[in-house]
Amino acid sequence: MLYIVGMGLGGERGVTVRGLDAVRRCARIYMEARTALLTLGVDGDTSSRLTKLENLYGNAVTIAGREIVEGESGDQILCEATGADIAFLVVGHPFGSDEPSCKATHTDLVVEAKKLGIEVKVIDSASVLNAVGACHHHTNIPFFTETCKRDHFYQTIVNNRGLGLHTLCLLDIYAKEPMSESLIRRNKVYEPPRFMTVNTAISQLLEPAYDEDSLCIGVARLGSDDEKIVAGPMRKLVGVDFGPPPHCLVVGKKFLWGTHVEKEMLQFYMIRS
Amino acid sequence: MLYIVGMGLGGERGVTVRGLDAVRRCARIYMEARTALLTLGVDGDTSSRLTKLENLYGNAVTIAGREIVEGESGDQILCEATGADIAFLVVGHPFGSDEPSCKATHTDLVVEAKKLGIEVKVIDSASVLNAVGACHHHTNIPFFTETCKRDHFYQTIVNNRGLGLHTLCLLDIYAKEPMSESLIRRNKVYEPPRFMTVNTAISQLLEPAYDEDSLCIGVARLGSDDEKIVAGPMRKLVGVDFGPPPHCLVVGKKFLWGTHVEKEMLQFYMIRS
Repeated sequence: MLYIVGMGLGGERGVTVRGLDAVRRCARIYMEARTALLTLGVDGDTSSRLTKLENLYGNAVTIAGREIVEGESGDQILCEATGADIAFLVVGHPFGSDEPSCKATHTDLVVEAKKLGIEVKVIDSASVLNAVGACHHHTNIPFFTETCKRDHFYQTIVNNRGLGLHTLCLLDIYAKEPMSESLIRRNKVYEPPRFMTVNTAISQLLEPAYDEDSLCIGVARLGSDDEKIVAGPMRKLVGVDFGPPPHCLVVGKKFLWGTHVEKEMLQFYMIRS
Repeated sequence: MLYIVGMGLGGERGVTVRGLDAVRRCARIYMEARTALLTLGVDGDTSSRLTKLENLYGNAVTIAGREIVEGESGDQILCEATGADIAFLVVGHPFGSDEPSCKATHTDLVVEAKKLGIEVKVIDSASVLNAVGACHHHTNIPFFTETCKRDHFYQTIVNNRGLGLHTLCLLDIYAKEPMSESLIRRNKVYEPPRFMTVNTAISQLLEPAYDEDSLCIGVARLGSDDEKIVAGPMRKLVGVDFGPPPHCLVVGKKFLWGTHVEKEMLQFYMIRS
């Protein structure tokens, strides 16, 4: 049996009771690399966080990069799952992934397993896509490069504004990306992991669609005990320290925020200074 | 402290580990009425299911109808939360509710609590809105009545089809609705609870937008151990017994289902006979 287990938000305790029961029964636990990066971080505390997580889940955890899930040794997980219970941990919801490439990877794993006659059980948990309540329309904001400029996501935000909708912007995360010049080599060299902050996202958005007074909501570490949510005009939010990743950003129609209750709710998060 | 705790999908074990820890710390546990109906059912097993749930959560559970959350005794929860830890359980995700009226109710509770200076902690879990993977566009299908016909949701489905998108249709649930003739009376009389099945939804959709060969996916009790997912043409699915509620239905573009991987995935659920 292959369990694809959503870890939800805010670390290992975002898993459901059903998910925890399943993971504890498993002979081996894999954790998707991006999930690992978001859950364990990249600073000095990584190993103590991993220990805490392994204590809760009752077993050692193997980090599975794309080379394990998709590469030459890609059959390893599926092979093991033919004879034992194997867990594959994914941050957020298994199919609610904020990154299309991850979503495809997880779906591929399920399809390949089913083709081999392996039973698959997907265990849900929360995703940022519904934890940010009213936003059912979202886009990804990538780091700008020579080949990837604002055209990719910009039209979505503009379209949503035209329809009077907010947009949830998921900010780029590089977990373990091979450097482009090493893509064809056997021993790939990876870029250092990096996360886009609310501040970078705002500075990329500031013109021409939005101006310094456009209202937005910055969100960091949603669902964890130290989540941080601050609303305000872009000129103020661009200078707020949101702390460690992951971050996301909600942008709405100019100076017009939904219903009365939504407006009241927004006030609780409004920046004061 | 007021904890608004998402119970996720498939019963009491859909709560997260973080949510369970919080609920177990609480002096009192309230459960939203519709949540109770979906979790405990309406048949003879209700009380044994409640016992199982109370055993996991470590405390008695009070069912809170709209008259408690919004009515004259509406301050009860807020009053208690000023001096103790109180949990308010909601099926799915607290703000990812499939019913706009429930969503407003939960948001109201948070706003009122914050106004009174009560600390509020929302604990996420899965929602049907992301558990049905690729569908970020959804609508509700109500039971047809004299005053509520297909106009309300139909345009959403038609618009999505035009854009090449699927629509997740959440099917109507009546938990504890006062009979209209008793609305102004002090002692309200409630309609018996009822749930729309996949079969009823299909028969309401069949004309004029869809025909008997239109592909769709029926989903029942998503996330629970006995979830049932069947894909096929409407003429076949209309006769499939999906069992107990809750049900939902995914309708797509006519005979055209996304990417190759999506098509493969769909085949695993395709009706054979």
